[in-house]
Amino acid sequence: MARALQGEDRLLRWLRRRIDRPLIGDDAAVLPPGGPFAVTVDSQISGVHFVPGLDAAAIARRLVAVNLSDLAAMGAMPSYAFLALAAAPDFDHRRFFRALLAACARHRLVLAGGDLSRPPAGAQGAPGAHGCNGSPGGNDVLVATLTVLGEKRRGGRWLRRGGAAPGHHVWLGGTAGESAAGRLLIAAGARFAAGRVSLPAGWGGARPRGRDGVAAAGRRAVHRHLLPRPQLALGQWLGRQAAGAAIDVSDGVARDLYRLCAESGVGARIEAARLPLAPGFASLCSALGADGEQLALHGGEDYVLLFTLPAAVEPPARFGCRRIGTIARGRRLWLVAGGGPARELAPAGWDHLA
Amino acid sequence: MARALQGEDRLLRWLRRRIDRPLIGDDAAVLPPGGPFAVTVDSQISGVHFVPGLDAAAIARRLVAVNLSDLAAMGAMPSYAFLALAAAPDFDHRRFFRALLAACARHRLVLAGGDLSRPPAGAQGAPGAHGCNGSPGGNDVLVATLTVLGEKRRGGRWLRRGGAAPGHHVWLGGTAGESAAGRLLIAAGARFAAGRVSLPAGWGGARPRGRDGVAAAGRRAVHRHLLPRPQLALGQWLGRQAAGAAIDVSDGVARDLYRLCAESGVGARIEAARLPLAPGFASLCSALGADGEQLALHGGEDYVLLFTLPAAVEPPARFGCRRIGTIARGRRLWLVAGGGPARELAPAGWDHLA
Repeated sequence: MARALQGEDRLLRWLRRRIDRPLIGDDAAVLPPGGPFAVTVDSQISGVHFVPGLDAAAIARRLVAVNLSDLAAMGAMPSYAFLALAAAPDFDHRRFFRALLAACARHRLVLAGGDLSRPPAGAQGAPGAHGCNGSPGGNDVLVATLTVLGEKRRGGRWLRRGGAAPGHHVWLGGTAGESAAGRLLIAAGARFAAGRVSLPAGWGGARPRGRDGVAAAGRRAVHRHLLPRPQLALGQWLGRQAAGAAIDVSDGVARDLYRLCAESGVGARIEAARLPLAPGFASLCSALGADGEQLALHGGEDYVLLFTLPAAVEPPARFGCRRIGTIARGRRLWLVAGGGPARELAPAGWDHLA
Repeated sequence: MARALQGEDRLLRWLRRRIDRPLIGDDAAVLPPGGPFAVTVDSQISGVHFVPGLDAAAIARRLVAVNLSDLAAMGAMPSYAFLALAAAPDFDHRRFFRALLAACARHRLVLAGGDLSRPPAGAQGAPGAHGCNGSPGGNDVLVATLTVLGEKRRGGRWLRRGGAAPGHHVWLGGTAGESAAGRLLIAAGARFAAGRVSLPAGWGGARPRGRDGVAAAGRRAVHRHLLPRPQLALGQWLGRQAAGAAIDVSDGVARDLYRLCAESGVGARIEAARLPLAPGFASLCSALGADGEQLALHGGEDYVLLFTLPAAVEPPARFGCRRIGTIARGRRLWLVAGGGPARELAPAGWDHLA
């Protein structure tokens, strides 16, 4: 269950007490238990995950990417996908499907079924009305849900959140916070169309000062936010290791580390200075008036793997992973920052239902 | 792909030309091909499938039923379900989940994962806003998508749409048109709450004249529309027969028969007088000012099985099936009505994207 929140975590705890077989708790469910498939479901929703009116192709690519990130966290190879799409008749369905099928082909994922419908209407809209109040804006209302099935690599194991042990090193598969910075820039008016990012007035004029100029960093952040890259190869490598836990970072490093530790019955200590940051991230955060450490710890939608390995094992350099801390006994998370004493790290992060 | 339409059928044809392995075309996909699971996905959307504000428990039960109807059409036994739910924080999530889990338990379906989110917003709503224009009505916007996996009964086969042959009899597993009459009554103001149907003014006053009184027929129609009963036992019986095709009627008898015939490369001739109708259906249609034959042929959301069997085979009486016609050579559908000559039956029916 990606992109969750305090209200949702409470609801999930309530649910787990009512479900016989606790399949919920990893990034995907293994079916039948011990069986050949890992199954997960994730949605992309207008006004929640992206600004209404986003290019249909970008929605499709993001939908595939966030789902495959869950499979990556299981060490799975993608196999089949099922789509439920609720969009207005004038939505560019063919552009959406072309991009969806291309993304599926890139990852050897077969689109095997689906369900198409009109978008929802609220109490103002009679059944059959499009969107809200019949206004044209309602035509941008879109809910796309993908269910994906993945298979285990031969000789591999399923990665789990519950595999962390004291002494394990904690690793991050890529930079943190950049996606959240991109989300802030989009809220400030940045847009993505025809493969290009346009920055809001005042930003577009800032000429990139070399590769790490703020405007260039901003464009990369928007791109990273909209089109994350699922770390499938890293997940499959981790699935070939004898020990370790993994989760994909959808709701923030702190919150997802908290979940991984809760499933493993351990605590952790991480060092703020070790969090991998994108080039130009500090300048970008200054320009946004945002706290870079907060974004890196709690921003969410990073879609990189957060994982643990025994201290003697290191992931190959080609994956660009960074060690950010250590698994400890106990149940609490500690953050060391700015040379000060370790302080307890709250599992704050994205919150839907709160 | 249930609840489809002309625009959708066109889109599906376009899609099938772009998909390598044509898994799309049955009520569920068999995965891996020839393998152990049938997988299908279907949504319930406010303002599309039900009037906004419907009891959370009824939404959950309907969501499970329409998905299991697809498994019934494959002859499958339910096994696992995955939920994606986009609903406002003040939606009664626990009432929804209690009903969902009870419906799953009734059918031995295990809820194995899911994704929770806020509902979508259109162009008027900034990301983070709830619903449209920030008005309270937006809190009724809801999209619930369920993906279900079913398994094949030992000794059975998967039912397919493509198994019909000339000379087969065409059967219907229950009455047609009653659900559509219920939908018309809801559009006229009928509501369902706390397990009871209340009829609009003018209907509630009509005292039931015995079991088949119009008001009683209306209440049954609303109940049938909101809470269909998937014909799983019938589907599993059909899966034990050596020959025959099946589909569940979601978009109308005519449209779904057209699909079954298209997959089988055959035509059919059906007799209007043989269409099974609910008690009091004719009076109910008169009171609604609706054409009963049109509702029975094109109303949709009946969620009964439409199937074929060799002429020598009849389903057991306990399933209450009715023979409505015969499969013929050619590709066209013919309807015999009112003692007149057979006329061609158009595949009209529910149309989402048109």
